[in-house]
Amino acid sequence: MKPKLICSLCFLLSTALSFSADAPSLRGYSTDASHTERDWETKFRAIPDPANLRAYMERMSAHPHHVGSPYDKDNAEWILSKLKEFGLSASIENFDVLFPTPKERVVELVAPHRFTASLREPPVPDDPTSSQQSEQLPTYNAYSADGDVTGPLVYVNYGVPADYDELARLGVSVEGAIVIARYGGSWRGIKPKVAAEHGAIGCLIYSDPRDDGYSAGEVFPNGPMRPRDGVQRGSVMDMPVYPGDPLTPGVGATKDAKRLPISQAATLTKIPVLPISYADAQPLLAAIGGRNVPGAWRGALPITYRVGPGPAKVHLAVKSNWDLKTLYDVIARIPGSAYPDEWIIRGNHHDGWVNGAEDPLSGTAPLLEEARGLGTLLREGWKPKRTILLCFWDGEEPGLLGSTEWAEAHAAELATRAAVYINSDSNSRGELRVEGSHTLERFINSVAKDIQDPEAGISVWNRMRFFRIATANGIVPDAHDAAAGERENPRGEADLRIGALGSGSDYTVFLDHLGVASLDLGFGGEDRAGIYHSIYDDFYWYTHFSDTDFVYGRALAQTAGTAVMRLAGAELLPLDFDDFTATIGRYVREVEKLAHDQREKIIERNREIDEGLFAAINDPRFPLNAPPKQAVPPFLNFAPLENGLAALQRTAALYDQELAKAAANGGAALARTSLREVNARLVTIERALTLNEGLPDRPWFRHQIYAPGLYTGYGVKTLPAVRESIEQKEWRLADQEVAKVGKVLENTGEAIEGATAELHKAIGQ
Amino acid sequence: MKPKLICSLCFLLSTALSFSADAPSLRGYSTDASHTERDWETKFRAIPDPANLRAYMERMSAHPHHVGSPYDKDNAEWILSKLKEFGLSASIENFDVLFPTPKERVVELVAPHRFTASLREPPVPDDPTSSQQSEQLPTYNAYSADGDVTGPLVYVNYGVPADYDELARLGVSVEGAIVIARYGGSWRGIKPKVAAEHGAIGCLIYSDPRDDGYSAGEVFPNGPMRPRDGVQRGSVMDMPVYPGDPLTPGVGATKDAKRLPISQAATLTKIPVLPISYADAQPLLAAIGGRNVPGAWRGALPITYRVGPGPAKVHLAVKSNWDLKTLYDVIARIPGSAYPDEWIIRGNHHDGWVNGAEDPLSGTAPLLEEARGLGTLLREGWKPKRTILLCFWDGEEPGLLGSTEWAEAHAAELATRAAVYINSDSNSRGELRVEGSHTLERFINSVAKDIQDPEAGISVWNRMRFFRIATANGIVPDAHDAAAGERENPRGEADLRIGALGSGSDYTVFLDHLGVASLDLGFGGEDRAGIYHSIYDDFYWYTHFSDTDFVYGRALAQTAGTAVMRLAGAELLPLDFDDFTATIGRYVREVEKLAHDQREKIIERNREIDEGLFAAINDPRFPLNAPPKQAVPPFLNFAPLENGLAALQRTAALYDQELAKAAANGGAALARTSLREVNARLVTIERALTLNEGLPDRPWFRHQIYAPGLYTGYGVKTLPAVRESIEQKEWRLADQEVAKVGKVLENTGEAIEGATAELHKAIGQ
Repeated sequence: MKPKLICSLCFLLSTALSFSADAPSLRGYSTDASHTERDWETKFRAIPDPANLRAYMERMSAHPHHVGSPYDKDNAEWILSKLKEFGLSASIENFDVLFPTPKERVVELVAPHRFTASLREPPVPDDPTSSQQSEQLPTYNAYSADGDVTGPLVYVNYGVPADYDELARLGVSVEGAIVIARYGGSWRGIKPKVAAEHGAIGCLIYSDPRDDGYSAGEVFPNGPMRPRDGVQRGSVMDMPVYPGDPLTPGVGATKDAKRLPISQAATLTKIPVLPISYADAQPLLAAIGGRNVPGAWRGALPITYRVGPGPAKVHLAVKSNWDLKTLYDVIARIPGSAYPDEWIIRGNHHDGWVNGAEDPLSGTAPLLEEARGLGTLLREGWKPKRTILLCFWDGEEPGLLGSTEWAEAHAAELATRAAVYINSDSNSRGELRVEGSHTLERFINSVAKDIQDPEAGISVWNRMRFFRIATANGIVPDAHDAAAGERENPRGEADLRIGALGSGSDYTVFLDHLGVASLDLGFGGEDRAGIYHSIYDDFYWYTHFSDTDFVYGRALAQTAGTAVMRLAGAELLPLDFDDFTATIGRYVREVEKLAHDQREKIIERNREIDEGLFAAINDPRFPLNAPPKQAVPPFLNFAPLENGLAALQRTAALYDQELAKAAANGGAALARTSLREVNARLVTIERALTLNEGLPDRPWFRHQIYAPGLYTGYGVKTLPAVRESIEQKEWRLADQEVAKVGKVLENTGEAIEGATAELHKAIGQ
Repeated sequence: MKPKLICSLCFLLSTALSFSADAPSLRGYSTDASHTERDWETKFRAIPDPANLRAYMERMSAHPHHVGSPYDKDNAEWILSKLKEFGLSASIENFDVLFPTPKERVVELVAPHRFTASLREPPVPDDPTSSQQSEQLPTYNAYSADGDVTGPLVYVNYGVPADYDELARLGVSVEGAIVIARYGGSWRGIKPKVAAEHGAIGCLIYSDPRDDGYSAGEVFPNGPMRPRDGVQRGSVMDMPVYPGDPLTPGVGATKDAKRLPISQAATLTKIPVLPISYADAQPLLAAIGGRNVPGAWRGALPITYRVGPGPAKVHLAVKSNWDLKTLYDVIARIPGSAYPDEWIIRGNHHDGWVNGAEDPLSGTAPLLEEARGLGTLLREGWKPKRTILLCFWDGEEPGLLGSTEWAEAHAAELATRAAVYINSDSNSRGELRVEGSHTLERFINSVAKDIQDPEAGISVWNRMRFFRIATANGIVPDAHDAAAGERENPRGEADLRIGALGSGSDYTVFLDHLGVASLDLGFGGEDRAGIYHSIYDDFYWYTHFSDTDFVYGRALAQTAGTAVMRLAGAELLPLDFDDFTATIGRYVREVEKLAHDQREKIIERNREIDEGLFAAINDPRFPLNAPPKQAVPPFLNFAPLENGLAALQRTAALYDQELAKAAANGGAALARTSLREVNARLVTIERALTLNEGLPDRPWFRHQIYAPGLYTGYGVKTLPAVRESIEQKEWRLADQEVAKVGKVLENTGEAIEGATAELHKAIGQ
């Protein structure tokens, strides 16, 4: 669901702690077990076949398959039949969720002249499925409030909070206005939320050609970018509050679940919202008067962008059917031989906004091929120690519905059993991009070293590393720009760092709500796409402009499948607390710096205001309002975080010592059967990073290290309670949260200590 | 002539060395003389009248007044009559220079379909002078080679050397092609020069709407920005080699001067060049195929920008009349009472490309009003100590012709007499922007403190300071962007720093060829303009969109006039070597860092190539060539520069000590008449910064601290011989030049020492 700007990773060689011998043993494996595991993995990686991936995608994208459509159910049943055909035990699990679909959509310019937006994506002759107009969901934003409003139009750039600060300087209010924001800069649901907070009565979101249209490249069908009438559908529910069915927060939306009345669902928008194409947006934007936009707000339409309000006046009407629809999650289960109550969960959604070839089938097809591979191995005698669940989620697009409801429904079992969740979503060509829990950073580095890149003839790990050096040195090709910001040169580091998970796909409930260590995997960076959530994201597009020969689909199946096998087969769950602790240390430094910089900035700004700087630099022809003075922040007490970090550093080192003992002599200690208790302790370490009370004002989000930002939506906020309270200048809250999160880190240190003690006992036996 | 991205200044309060008392004495003045001077200056600043400025501009812009036009001569005669009316002694001095005007201009797309560029700027109904079509120079680039070529089209972004590096990575050659470059990123003459060096056979330069068209704001006549058919004329002579008449380098183009044959004029382009509008450019650019451009190369036309070469094929023909035309420099002279052989020279050109209201008359009118003011003071008994020359240059637009030929013709006198040159060119609204010799930095700070900003009600110095703080803190309004890069927060510094002079206006011959300490002054930053060098730069445009009430014209007259008076009236020429030495110190650090970074970068790049990074990150669908390996640079010997700098530091401190003594007791020592020799020594200190042999391969440029870059044109290269030899990786040359420039700094230290000794003698008398 999240557009492919996934990023992140970085590094540290696991040599120091790997289990000696010629070929280094896998972490968490005795030498013998490691050899066996490597043999099975090698067999597995030979299985995935691009021709199958192509066939799966063609079949599943043959018709629109959104939640509630006949083909969504049909796909689920077909997936089920395939899983069974592969020899796996599988079933469909249903949930009933609120999923509005539009009855009425109107966007009209009513002044200074009239123009009616088409709100239609026309078929493209060469592209067969684009003509399935009667089966397609119209262009809309799901969970928009119903409404019929008319008001002056204001252009708000990306519509994020900083843009409203800029509008305030320009003296422009959106009170009583309809805003038009361009896609990008945040999760789309942030735009109507922030607009409503500022008093707007309606919201339009359009795709500017600068971002994914003609300015970025040739448009479909001549190229991969968004054509003039292409529209990005998408959910606008307030997912940073809670994802999943708006009517059943925290519980599974089973048939008889207790449901909120719609009026009490906190995650619906407060104002009506519609997405439009740039063909529809141009007459609206061209009719806006007032001041010119700041330079950074300009798009690529051949007009002068202005802020308004008016004289452009717009009539916007949205009305939806507010029905419950049935979800079809398809779950296959491979029971574990040694630790059946430790689950390795692998998932990718199968629903799309329309034909959804890239999003999500480019990830669904590899998952299905992984299932075939594992089925094959099982028939050949492979026996994973842990239970493996392969999950084909429904309803991800509207709001991570299928994964969230399933995990909420099974929360009790998952709390003790879920060891790791591995997600994928869309897939393209390029480098492997990994985000996730930092206890898995070292592990996924080891996997990436064993996967061959289909284009470069080197391991995907090596290619990632080269991309990072290239990005750090400013020599990376154009399409990789998006990830450039956060890159550091990995030379001299053993593991490539992985980024933290925000939100935007099905890992959210596992990581953020249940505290299950999670990873999100996918290849990308070489192809630009402008068909996201439009009718043009289909088989024709994918096979002309993306991973056309499905070799990266195969690489994804190889990567995720290897990760699942290696996690499921390990004698000792291969978590690592070194990279994890180093990362927490960086986050602690970041929030300390944030508080410091925030303070310095407010002091400097107040000084500027007192000195009369804003009056002095004002242009009387284009005056700007001075920003308001702000109270100077107090110094915060970061000692609890520092103490928590110190506890992690101490306990992580002790765990490593114990692990080194266990790994000595070919890992004889590991080969014993007495590691059950150690493993059980390891599984729950990520749980120690959660608090039952959740984050301030959003109890559903329990993880204290990772969360999507309340005002970014996709973008992660690490140490979220601390970071966001500082960002929002709630100093008292910040001090409280520092103390709480410090305690969480200490608790996590104790959990690591507990696992270490069990490991010590096990070795001693 | 240079488009208004003038910038720069920074600071240091002259309190320490100013001559005590209640109101601090002016630097170089005894207390009494300072009071008298301040009284005269106050009288002077009351004189300039916006109504006069408006009337002057209206008169001089009433018809096109380019070199060789009847109205150019008419304006010169009118200026002369006004100067005489103001009571000044003045005359016209003529030179005969090569100034080609077009006979034939063709730009046609001949494949894949036909399109003929209009090459015409249509009249605008509301704008009366835009209809004077028969008097207007057609749109062209002066000093383009004649030629008739047809070839595939390649888009080269700004057409600077770095763009060709990018093309090489894309595998695109311009050999045998016609390039199309957008305006910006360098002086326009660089574009055909670099294109020809890479084998191109022709060059088009167009104005992209992103830079000064609709994307930047409403277009003329609804706004100030460039309309679809607007074209930027301009010279493309190779001015970084030498400016002025191409046929008489180094000597005045008097009637009987010895002239080169045209075939030997080194500053004409090697290939034909024409400028075009974005209306004419769009069909050409849209027809280019090949790879998409890198992201930073995109303009704001509603097309996908591609690199080519072809399938677009263009026919370009240019043929000119290669005639000599007569220049009319108008020079007024106010003889000095005490030091008649020390000249303070003030200049602004009067020729325009068409009606030239902003460029140059917004600067010419204030100069004329300064002349009126000084004439008025003379009648009231004011007696400047030094001789003042007020110069209205002709032929600046084609290549700084009038100032260069005049200064070359008078080089012998100027060598001993020219103390300071103060230039202005176009003027707009906003902050005072100053560039110049750093021996004048402290002085111009003192002047800026005495000028009232017409909008902000504070001194222009204070406003400059606030703009700099705002820019350093990222809160400056949009139009000021251009200067943002080089700003440091001036808090805690006494003087606002001034930027170094590159080229682009009439100071060039004074500073770079003759070594006369120079300043360039103008207000700007609040207004964007898209009429540069078009028929729309006229009285209608200026009085609707720029300094419409001419209050900044008045401020410029007040600033430049005060500077001239204060320099002309000082007992001791108020040069300063503190800020100067600190600046030289920064430049020395910069070139050392440049050499270091260059070395590190080459080592890292070679390592990347050896490791196979470029192959690893290559996208096989869009492959890029790896850059070539380069020889690792040797370490350079910077000791001579450091020794030179140390000499400056030592001698500057001694001069300050002596000056403090002279300034003690109301500056009694200064009031003596025996400072003639000290002043004469001070005048020549800037000369010590030159070498007769000039810069490598461009002997006309003699100054060793400042020069326009060989590949930037406008942009300055400080310590040019050293910096450019490092940039061009000519290590042996770099070592030689470091030694030479180090010696120049030592010589300058000796010159300061000489002035100090004379000052010591004078005080002792």
